[in-house]
Amino acid sequence: MAATASSYSITMRLYTAPDHSVVGAVATTIAHNGGVVTAIDVAESRHDRLTVDVTCSASDATHSQELVTAVSGVEGVTVHKVSDRTFLLHLGGKISVESKVPLRTRDDLSMAYTPGVGRVSMAIHDNPEDVRKLTIKGNSVAVVTDGSAVLGLGNIGPGAAMPVMEGKAALFKRFADIDAWPICLASQDTDEIVKAVEMIAPGFGGINLEDIAAPRCFEIEARLRESLDIPVFHDDQHGTAIVVLAALTNALRCVDKQLTDVRIVVSGAGAAGTAIVTLLLAAGAEDVVVVDRDGALCGGDASLSTAHTELAAATNPRKAAGSLQDVLVDADVFIGVSAPGILDPQWIPTMAPKPVVFALANPDPEVDPAEADKHAAVVASGRSDYPNQINNVLAFPGVFRGLLDAGASEVTVDMLLRAAQAIADTVKPEELHPSFIIPSVFHPDVTKRVAAAISGREG
Amino acid sequence: MAATASSYSITMRLYTAPDHSVVGAVATTIAHNGGVVTAIDVAESRHDRLTVDVTCSASDATHSQELVTAVSGVEGVTVHKVSDRTFLLHLGGKISVESKVPLRTRDDLSMAYTPGVGRVSMAIHDNPEDVRKLTIKGNSVAVVTDGSAVLGLGNIGPGAAMPVMEGKAALFKRFADIDAWPICLASQDTDEIVKAVEMIAPGFGGINLEDIAAPRCFEIEARLRESLDIPVFHDDQHGTAIVVLAALTNALRCVDKQLTDVRIVVSGAGAAGTAIVTLLLAAGAEDVVVVDRDGALCGGDASLSTAHTELAAATNPRKAAGSLQDVLVDADVFIGVSAPGILDPQWIPTMAPKPVVFALANPDPEVDPAEADKHAAVVASGRSDYPNQINNVLAFPGVFRGLLDAGASEVTVDMLLRAAQAIADTVKPEELHPSFIIPSVFHPDVTKRVAAAISGREG
Repeated sequence: MAATASSYSITMRLYTAPDHSVVGAVATTIAHNGGVVTAIDVAESRHDRLTVDVTCSASDATHSQELVTAVSGVEGVTVHKVSDRTFLLHLGGKISVESKVPLRTRDDLSMAYTPGVGRVSMAIHDNPEDVRKLTIKGNSVAVVTDGSAVLGLGNIGPGAAMPVMEGKAALFKRFADIDAWPICLASQDTDEIVKAVEMIAPGFGGINLEDIAAPRCFEIEARLRESLDIPVFHDDQHGTAIVVLAALTNALRCVDKQLTDVRIVVSGAGAAGTAIVTLLLAAGAEDVVVVDRDGALCGGDASLSTAHTELAAATNPRKAAGSLQDVLVDADVFIGVSAPGILDPQWIPTMAPKPVVFALANPDPEVDPAEADKHAAVVASGRSDYPNQINNVLAFPGVFRGLLDAGASEVTVDMLLRAAQAIADTVKPEELHPSFIIPSVFHPDVTKRVAAAISGREG
Repeated sequence: MAATASSYSITMRLYTAPDHSVVGAVATTIAHNGGVVTAIDVAESRHDRLTVDVTCSASDATHSQELVTAVSGVEGVTVHKVSDRTFLLHLGGKISVESKVPLRTRDDLSMAYTPGVGRVSMAIHDNPEDVRKLTIKGNSVAVVTDGSAVLGLGNIGPGAAMPVMEGKAALFKRFADIDAWPICLASQDTDEIVKAVEMIAPGFGGINLEDIAAPRCFEIEARLRESLDIPVFHDDQHGTAIVVLAALTNALRCVDKQLTDVRIVVSGAGAAGTAIVTLLLAAGAEDVVVVDRDGALCGGDASLSTAHTELAAATNPRKAAGSLQDVLVDADVFIGVSAPGILDPQWIPTMAPKPVVFALANPDPEVDPAEADKHAAVVASGRSDYPNQINNVLAFPGVFRGLLDAGASEVTVDMLLRAAQAIADTVKPEELHPSFIIPSVFHPDVTKRVAAAISGREG
């Protein structure tokens, strides 16, 4: 039976015969069909019928439709309405802007707005650095996308990207008390994106680039880092890289190997793969081979793109060639940020002893974590229904908290390394286990430890 | 004695001799020097001294310094620290972003963010109009400025404009439950501003242009209205015009004159003046003369700019020429949106009987309202310390509330006329009085009436 998830939770409003056994039959039917009943509320009881709200989880949209059909078939039951909890939660959007100051009286208005605000504006005009202290800039981040590479959904455009960027803004508040605002841009042209972000930068203390397709994302980030005086951080690159390095640090502790010694195969040479490789090398890894759909990237291959040529030049010191299956032989670590199902679990036994497998493609990993677990010493994935979830929520809130706390103007590789170390060290030695190489996203300390690692201040 | 205002409210922390008469002497000293004591708190009492926080209002920054000096001179008093309440209120900014959804559990995350959010994104991808329903776009407004004409402060740039734009966002929430976000742009080039707003438009349900200098603001608004599918409203133009028309409607009721019959002189041919004239003409005014620093604008004058040529062509049917003093003779209405002190109160008796004077320059009006009151039948100003304050807060919250409620894609002149009428009609006939031609900004109904007038729905 497939795992159920709240993201496919539905509420059915049923009219039933006034007979409690019917409600029991509904619950049994849902369970028999693989759903999980999470709530049953009788909303109205009349002599001729009951109105019952049944909330249950399904494994996906098709499954939820099957549950509705099954419940419709129960004798004495009419399905009146089906509500999707995820859609209900999104109605009206997920974030709001609130005033932090009272606006009850004319005096309040005259301090928060004209004429009082004029003195605050002039103070900033006289001392431009005060803008961080006297406005939201000191705590605000723009979550910027062009909608070109949204989650696993691809190029769905800025409007359809909004729910994701809003969700990210909500996470920024929840995990780091940061005021983030979604900026979904109406163009996928590199020059236009760079210019737009430069234009809006005065009001923000940091820029979080999100779900922008490679290789465009590399140039956009590089140009913005050059031109802006606030930090620019492409989360799909560096957030992922930080959490992967943290997880790998602890995975290698579990199998008693050193990063400098291990052979690492990275599948995927896009935004995430490139950033992961760069950070692994900065952390001391020496034998990294990058594989894309055409096989291992190897220096001197004239057919490679600019980005891949740079990546090839920095990696693959043994000049390994061939397919993923080929280069996996004797590798210690597999890190996949590529495509579902490309790793045959039978290849894992050809790896070095005690292999580490990170299958991070979303929503469907390179290899089923349960299958990989049969052969590997440590397995991690992006899924929340297996141990060792590699989740950027472990990194980006603390990264920006630290950057804003320090009033930082840039993000350095040292910061990223320190952030990864802080996440890894949040798992205490006595807790470390092949099924617990990474803390929970709800770990109470992880954001402040990452923030302290970034800012250099005590957490 | 000058009026005091909370925008210059300060708190002094004093160390005094442990003698209550000293505190009394402090209060007396502040009062003698024209300050208003609003609070005295003894924060600490020791055998050798008291720590006392005294909060008082001053008329301006110089006056507040005078009060501090006077208090320092009281025997037995040391001023330890002076805090400015307006600056304290601005620390950390005035707005925040909050999550409207719970993010306590992994299930919560999986609905608000990945993987659940993916279905919501795809629903918008399939039905782009659903973005207003399923994201913040349905309730969000960008408050956009280039910092070129901020309040009466002039061209202070985007950073220094932030406190004003944040204040505006706070007012949007307070008065219309709208989620507005400040966007302060790093350029004052018309093309770049237009492009930047077009780029960020997908995430917003409306654009409020703010404090952008004329004549650039006219082209920016016109081009954005042409290119965007969401309403664009330059508040300094149309918000002001709506409230002026509302006030004038009631002022003319007071003096029993008709808009179609009166002679109106408008001083100032910038953003506000141009919009006021346009709306007055649309409302039926026939005899409007616009005066700038060179005198009355008159059709056929080759020395005029493009914007002024258009304004001249639409106005001044009697071809009146000369200075403000000249054209005021026999005028029924003066509306000033220009510069402080340019209207000599002695000119008012040369106007037609029962003259109406709106002196709206900020912070210092064209004529002291108290002086104007000696000669005019009705006087209004932008000041909160005189009756009849012309304040855009009466209009813009309701305007955008109505636009968002209707899912409007544009702002029409008819909407502006209906909004003005709604504000005017909020003053009941039995309340109407030369000192009460416009409702208070805190009137509980004004926003919803304006919104209903804009959207065409019941309020």
